[in-house]
Amino acid sequence: MKNKKNKLNISRRSVLTGMAGAAGTILAKTSEGNEIQTSTDRPFAPDDPAKVTASQWATKIGKRSIFENYERDVRYTGTSSRSPLHQLHGTITPSDLHFERHHAGVPIIDPEKHKLIIHGMVDRPMTFSLSDLKRFPAVSRICFIECSGNLAREAGEYTTPQNICGMTSQSEWSGVMLSTLLREVGVKPSATWFLAEGSDAAVLTRSIPKQIWNESMIVYAQNGEAVRPENGYPIRLLNPGYEGNSSVKWLRRMEFSDRPFMTREETSKYTETIKEGKARQFSLSMDARSIITYPAYPNTVEKGWIELQGIAWSGRGRITKTEVSTDAGKTWVTANLQEPILPKAHTRFRHLFKWDGKETIILSRAVDETGYTQPDRKTLIKARGVGSIPYHNNPITGWRLRAGGDVVYRVQEWG
Amino acid sequence: MKNKKNKLNISRRSVLTGMAGAAGTILAKTSEGNEIQTSTDRPFAPDDPAKVTASQWATKIGKRSIFENYERDVRYTGTSSRSPLHQLHGTITPSDLHFERHHAGVPIIDPEKHKLIIHGMVDRPMTFSLSDLKRFPAVSRICFIECSGNLAREAGEYTTPQNICGMTSQSEWSGVMLSTLLREVGVKPSATWFLAEGSDAAVLTRSIPKQIWNESMIVYAQNGEAVRPENGYPIRLLNPGYEGNSSVKWLRRMEFSDRPFMTREETSKYTETIKEGKARQFSLSMDARSIITYPAYPNTVEKGWIELQGIAWSGRGRITKTEVSTDAGKTWVTANLQEPILPKAHTRFRHLFKWDGKETIILSRAVDETGYTQPDRKTLIKARGVGSIPYHNNPITGWRLRAGGDVVYRVQEWG
Repeated sequence: MKNKKNKLNISRRSVLTGMAGAAGTILAKTSEGNEIQTSTDRPFAPDDPAKVTASQWATKIGKRSIFENYERDVRYTGTSSRSPLHQLHGTITPSDLHFERHHAGVPIIDPEKHKLIIHGMVDRPMTFSLSDLKRFPAVSRICFIECSGNLAREAGEYTTPQNICGMTSQSEWSGVMLSTLLREVGVKPSATWFLAEGSDAAVLTRSIPKQIWNESMIVYAQNGEAVRPENGYPIRLLNPGYEGNSSVKWLRRMEFSDRPFMTREETSKYTETIKEGKARQFSLSMDARSIITYPAYPNTVEKGWIELQGIAWSGRGRITKTEVSTDAGKTWVTANLQEPILPKAHTRFRHLFKWDGKETIILSRAVDETGYTQPDRKTLIKARGVGSIPYHNNPITGWRLRAGGDVVYRVQEWG
Repeated sequence: MKNKKNKLNISRRSVLTGMAGAAGTILAKTSEGNEIQTSTDRPFAPDDPAKVTASQWATKIGKRSIFENYERDVRYTGTSSRSPLHQLHGTITPSDLHFERHHAGVPIIDPEKHKLIIHGMVDRPMTFSLSDLKRFPAVSRICFIECSGNLAREAGEYTTPQNICGMTSQSEWSGVMLSTLLREVGVKPSATWFLAEGSDAAVLTRSIPKQIWNESMIVYAQNGEAVRPENGYPIRLLNPGYEGNSSVKWLRRMEFSDRPFMTREETSKYTETIKEGKARQFSLSMDARSIITYPAYPNTVEKGWIELQGIAWSGRGRITKTEVSTDAGKTWVTANLQEPILPKAHTRFRHLFKWDGKETIILSRAVDETGYTQPDRKTLIKARGVGSIPYHNNPITGWRLRAGGDVVYRVQEWG
């Protein structure tokens, strides 16, 4: 009996290949059911927790383990931060790690004083307080929000998924459907656009076309609680699947019209120069995209079975398929998608593969319900031109597994 | 033009009844499309945010608005805290507000040192580190966990949904299926129960029957991030739909057997005395239940349209229907259920009704896919006897709307 502990001290490597040792026979009595071990007989417990004093009693607000460290990647300008995609599991982003992007900082808004004004081509212009909005029938929706400039342009090998495209995050949002408010104010049939205006110091404005109105929401809650300050507290617009900037935060005004407003934000910014001197404007839907979050830099891996994981999403509906390649794009296989697969939502994909220990590149590409397939960078740049790079840049992205087990970003050329 | 602001200063009450005032004519020019208002012309904006300095730049970890206050309801024993259900929207519980229950406090566990031991009626007893567990194929699942003692027994009128049944919370959990580990250790076909043992100072143990094994998970992530300390960091067992205590936290040992272990926790506790001197043991599944979270104490309401909201859940599968009564149980109507409706998950229900301002009682009852209907307290106590009160007490619960608009708990008799 005295060697029992040693015999069960299984190495990490042996776990995944399976182990059948002498330890099994030691437990034979129990296995045959002749003797039920009691809870005071714990031969394999290295320490006796019953002799440890509790370290913490119940608390009003929980804190993370002292052994965990999560941080958004804050850009030097102080106007954006990225979610640590490589540290996250599932699809929900903790609210304090949801990416943020603003043009002039986060305002502090007293919810009692905040008002939303709806006017323009409506029969009954109105103002709504937060209490007013909460009295309307509510809805909840799990979906992603992604910044249209969600790509690290100067990415070297030592770049994480967070650095590359951490400006996409997912929450369960709750609020009121825009359509509910439109019935209230009596939007005119001839209205086809509205201006959304934020209460931040930048007074961000965007023109929102009628196509999305039936899905748009004015949300006051994020993952159960009030929307976080950097995400628009007390209310933000939510246009599922559209460029993040269109889901105007700290929303204070919506003006209805029969044409777009051509504001500074949607002319000097959020317009992509494309080929032949042309520009693409109001390119609001986010194209299908995916990223492998494990293994990725800064992980290291061992030869043998590896479960590759990542997230895929599309602004145009459900993800129908995500393919992965573990041989630098020579062959592709279909990964497993985690249910439930929701429209315009991060969808986790997973694929188990056996790595032979030789250098290779792993890649993923998402396909959405419209049939759109995430393109490779060459195709993307060829179709749109290099001027389009700052926005809607969703190329197939990969990681290089080096022979030693180091994983680094697969740097791609731009032109 | 000078009275414009005043004319749009609509009272809260007028918003929901609709308003068409002189303000509409002021906007006529815009409404007719003769003139597009520019973003520098904001007649209805009370202040000019462009003149306000940004109050906060991007941060590594977000914080709640200073205007919001959420707290778990900590019991005097320091061994439990309840989620503020009356403050939450949607179905996801923020991880720092997830209820907690422990018998001897929360241990601080170094994840590098933590091991899970699986032994007993298995071919290959093994230990698994956290890294080992993360190498296995992962799954995610959104479901609730509820404490089997989730009821405030001494509830007076001034009791919130949080006080009454805040020991149910929901997360997206990620980890490895138990079935995956069972293939690894080679569980014997004759094994029908396992003992789950925690690493807390109480060394909580529960016997888990084979019925749930195909759904059981060993989880290391909660809402994207690592499981919180009070919820079992670094790993907990998750038995969806079963009593919360069976989802043993700080899991360190699983021992397989052909019978239950009859530990102290499942004999002195978690066994309900029922009628005629009998006791009900291993009553693990949580029955269907619902609670109206708005309006509830401490809300006040006004005569007119009110959207009643709440959550319904069942440990036996999906919620198929939630009925509400706004006339003290005389008549019942079917509420709307928020999609997606997931098995063993909180499901938000909503129902719009017009309150005439007279005192009444509002009630809700959940129905699950097995056809089970949440009973009233009288039926429940009659069937089981008063000895059963401490556990699995899921009666139809209600709120009294007083003529003045105060909302209080509808106190019910126990016998």
